[in-house]
Amino acid sequence: MQPDLLHRADAAHALQHFRTLSPLVHCMTNDVVQTFTANVLLALGASPAMVIDEQEAAQFSAIADALLINVGTLTADRARAMRAAIDSANTAGKPWTLDPVAVGALTFRSDFCKELLALRPAAIRGNASEILALAGMSAGGRGVDTTDHAQAALPAAQALARQTQAVVAVTGEVDYVTDGVRTLAVTGGDPLMTRVVGTGCALSAVVAASCALPGDRLTSVAAACSVMAQAGSRAVAASTGPGSFTPAFLDALYALNGEDVA
Amino acid sequence: MQPDLLHRADAAHALQHFRTLSPLVHCMTNDVVQTFTANVLLALGASPAMVIDEQEAAQFSAIADALLINVGTLTADRARAMRAAIDSANTAGKPWTLDPVAVGALTFRSDFCKELLALRPAAIRGNASEILALAGMSAGGRGVDTTDHAQAALPAAQALARQTQAVVAVTGEVDYVTDGVRTLAVTGGDPLMTRVVGTGCALSAVVAASCALPGDRLTSVAAACSVMAQAGSRAVAASTGPGSFTPAFLDALYALNGEDVA
Amino acid sequence: MQPDLLHRADAAHALQHFRTLSPLVHCMTNDVVQTFTANVLLALGASPAMVIDEQEAAQFSAIADALLINVGTLTADRARAMRAAIDSANTAGKPWTLDPVAVGALTFRSDFCKELLALRPAAIRGNASEILALAGMSAGGRGVDTTDHAQAALPAAQALARQTQAVVAVTGEVDYVTDGVRTLAVTGGDPLMTRVVGTGCALSAVVAASCALPGDRLTSVAAACSVMAQAGSRAVAASTGPGSFTPAFLDALYALNGEDVA
Repeated sequence: MQPDLLHRADAAHALQHFRTLSPLVHCMTNDVVQTFTANVLLALGASPAMVIDEQEAAQFSAIADALLINVGTLTADRARAMRAAIDSANTAGKPWTLDPVAVGALTFRSDFCKELLALRPAAIRGNASEILALAGMSAGGRGVDTTDHAQAALPAAQALARQTQAVVAVTGEVDYVTDGVRTLAVTGGDPLMTRVVGTGCALSAVVAASCALPGDRLTSVAAACSVMAQAGSRAVAASTGPGSFTPAFLDALYALNGEDVA
Repeated sequence: MQPDLLHRADAAHALQHFRTLSPLVHCMTNDVVQTFTANVLLALGASPAMVIDEQEAAQFSAIADALLINVGTLTADRARAMRAAIDSANTAGKPWTLDPVAVGALTFRSDFCKELLALRPAAIRGNASEILALAGMSAGGRGVDTTDHAQAALPAAQALARQTQAVVAVTGEVDYVTDGVRTLAVTGGDPLMTRVVGTGCALSAVVAASCALPGDRLTSVAAACSVMAQAGSRAVAASTGPGSFTPAFLDALYALNGEDVA
Repeated sequence: MQPDLLHRADAAHALQHFRTLSPLVHCMTNDVVQTFTANVLLALGASPAMVIDEQEAAQFSAIADALLINVGTLTADRARAMRAAIDSANTAGKPWTLDPVAVGALTFRSDFCKELLALRPAAIRGNASEILALAGMSAGGRGVDTTDHAQAALPAAQALARQTQAVVAVTGEVDYVTDGVRTLAVTGGDPLMTRVVGTGCALSAVVAASCALPGDRLTSVAAACSVMAQAGSRAVAASTGPGSFTPAFLDALYALNGEDVA
């Protein structure tokens, strides 16, 4: 089954929705990418909040429009708080998204991520190695960097989507977004983005936010990937390395409008 | 009672003191804004240090010149360490400042912040929603963003200042700084600053540092607000979005001198 | 014993090795510098990963090529996880590096750092106050800023190197790198770097990574200092303050090649 290309008009439409609705995103993410994640969401017009205490996390995920679970710096305490937040989000009918950072390579997070798959995530975003490991089709890499191409993980992504009923995005040089039946391909971005920490994690936060938008979720998630890829391409053109990329990327996200995307 | 405008000469004077004395600021702040907070204090010539273990926090707050308590990513462990640090600061006669992030919206931090009000903070800095909630005059918003204007929270700020004997700064389009009797208004800044995570939290760190300066505390705190607002205005003029704002803001803080401020 | 100047050809050689081998660096570092540390390693072509849970840290330090232990925001939980990671690294024959942030000033971390000295660190990187305190020759300063010159700490560094068999780098206006017998001096850098949080901590991460390179470890560690100092000098020339320094520094690290360094 060949993936379709995301229609640019659909991406433009989703971006407009995103800016208008300004989703409040509860981010339970890793220590390394908190600032960048918050700034990416703010640049796009969303409203991020990081709430991590178990009791508060449960309270807040019912208030927020969407929840992000990123296991990059998982601890036992955080796992407990994440479970509480997910239960509360599910009860309140709020969508939650999983970023299974480095799953497969490390036992504690691998067990935790597999446990979470039964808790009805709205979306899952990972690189090829992570999606292969999560689908049980690979032993995973040594860490956060993928050793596989996104296309090689597409069957795993589709199987995972069917198993969990989540929209699964496997991102790389080309991103593939699938619900197990339909698959959309998203192009753009630049290898320089792999030299800046948090681009993938921040994309997962935008995916989480996009799950709060009305309309077709597969399209919304693919639009999130497309907006980030397009801002990335612009920022690379405007920068001279991974340092100047970051401010240029946030400026590009802030400036991007429907016409640019379309 | 009409607020007075902060005299620019007073702000210039405070900035000079700040750079000369280089206060050592013990920051117990949230996970999202640590780097930015440290860089803001360094750009202004202060010396930040983040010490979080309960025993070490108590030891360090007696050594440092000022203490910042920011509850953005509060946990039970951190609350314990914060209490220990505050007790130690109070015993050593060092001023401490409260940033009650998202108070009102979440139970655990709301109870904690209210408990802290009895522990003699030197200053409290929050947005309108937070100050209203802390003064018991509002149920608070959904998160970290204010849903009220600073001026609407001025009576709450004044009541809170009289109750706690702290200088209270309620910040927004115009900042109001009050000790319950006198009130100073500070203008400047730019809405773009709300699209960059940590500008408010970093201001609280500068407020905390300014409480270590000799002279009138109301003026020092208002001067802290003024310096940040003026650097913000300059940075917005020199940048093309929230990404380029951050380096421009730190450069502006570093370059700002008494003459600029006056 | 006069220190020798590091040969620039040796620094160039080490940089080429670094980019080719792309060491996977397990960073257990403080909350304030995580993003910057990761971005510095990525800009240089290394692969950073922050893994902090006790069980996962032990598992990962055996997989990674090098381990960094930075005690800036130490807690009892983190100390436990760090011990587990060090034991595992030692068993697997992977080098680990200590950054004893603010040792001497605070009891818990001072005791912990002294305990770690017996666990065969490959390298130790600190400022003069920290190295003096770690060698038992000073009571230390008030915090993270050094109150001593690197040269004054050279005898302490040499004694510490002989005691632990680690390569010890004491960094400041001039950096000295010693194994207790030979000593190399590294020049470059700029005082502006002390107004940007994390430059020292990120250097420790690059030192940790450089311990995974083949060849003479003393030279590798000195080369790490040299690469950071040269990128720092270039970035200062290209920037207008501590804010614009950061993107310029990461760009310079990314662009630096063997010819530049030689």
